[in-house]
Amino acid sequence: MTTRLCLTLFLITTSFTVSADIKPSNNIEYPSDWQNWASIAVSHRTDNNTLRLIIGNNIAVKAARSGKTNPWPEGAIIGKVVWKETQLENWQAAVVPKQLVHTEFMFKDSKKYSKTHGWGWARWVGLEKKAFNKGTEVCSSCHSAVKNRNWVFTDPAQFPEIP
Amino acid sequence: MTTRLCLTLFLITTSFTVSADIKPSNNIEYPSDWQNWASIAVSHRTDNNTLRLIIGNNIAVKAARSGKTNPWPEGAIIGKVVWKETQLENWQAAVVPKQLVHTEFMFKDSKKYSKTHGWGWARWVGLEKKAFNKGTEVCSSCHSAVKNRNWVFTDPAQFPEIP
Repeated sequence: MTTRLCLTLFLITTSFTVSADIKPSNNIEYPSDWQNWASIAVSHRTDNNTLRLIIGNNIAVKAARSGKTNPWPEGAIIGKVVWKETQLENWQAAVVPKQLVHTEFMFKDSKKYSKTHGWGWARWVGLEKKAFNKGTEVCSSCHSAVKNRNWVFTDPAQFPEIP
Repeated sequence: MTTRLCLTLFLITTSFTVSADIKPSNNIEYPSDWQNWASIAVSHRTDNNTLRLIIGNNIAVKAARSGKTNPWPEGAIIGKVVWKETQLENWQAAVVPKQLVHTEFMFKDSKKYSKTHGWGWARWVGLEKKAFNKGTEVCSSCHSAVKNRNWVFTDPAQFPEIP
C-alpha cells in the first residue's frame, strides 16, 4: 500500500515537473498544444540537411489559406518544427525526418513586440524543450532578408478548399 | 431586386455544387476537414521532385505519437498531401511546395477493406479534387514493399510531448 502511494506521488510529481520545467524563451511562454495545429507548408533545407514542418494557430492558418499574409494578422503564431534528415529505409529516394533539432515560433503582436519588428521570436531545443535565450537578434538578423514579406520566409502551400 | 435574388440563388447553387462535385475515389467518400488535421511526418521525394506532408485523423495521430503503428489502429486515416517542388525565392537552398499534385488517403478498417489488406485506398487529384478511380491495385502494388509495416511507408516524426 505504501509502495503504491509512493509510486502515485512520484508519478504526480514527475508529471508536474515536466510541465513546469519548460522555461520561457526570450521571455515568451511555450505555446500550448501546438502539436495539434494544422499545417501551412513544409520545406527541405539542403544547406543544413534538415526537414521542416511549418504550422500555425487558427489565426495564422486562416490567413495562410486565404493569402492574407502581408502583413500576417495580429494574434498569428507560426511554428517551425525542424528535424535532421535521413533516407527512408524502404524508399531510399525519400528524404525524411530523423532527430528533432528544435521548434521555433513567431508571435505576431505589433504593440507588445514593437521593438522586434512586430513579432515575438522563440525557440525550444530538442525533445527536452530547452529554452533558447540568446536574444531575438539571432532570429531577426537572418529574417531581415524577408522584411518586405512581414519578416516571414514561408510561402503558404496550396491546399484544396474545405468543401 | 430580381437581380439580387438571382445572384443569391446563383451563389447558393454554386456553393452546393462545389461540395457535391467531389466524387468518391475507389468507392470511398472524400474525408471531411482533413485540412485541419495534425501532422505525422514530412518527406521530400528526390526521384519525382515532390514534397509531402503526412497528416492523420485523431486516431492515427495518437497512434503515431505513441509508436503504436504496427498495426495501425482501426479507424485510423492517414493522409498524404503532395506538391511539386520549387526553390524558395528568398532562400534558394530551401526546397518548398509549388503546385498541388494530389491528396491520398489510407482508411484502416480490417473488416470493410479485408480484400485490400485492411485498408481503403483513395486519391483526389489537384485543387479541383478529381477522384482517382483506376482501382486500389495501383496503390497497393507499390505499398507491398512495406506489407510487414502494415502497408505504410511513413515513419512518424519525433514530436516533443504535449506537457
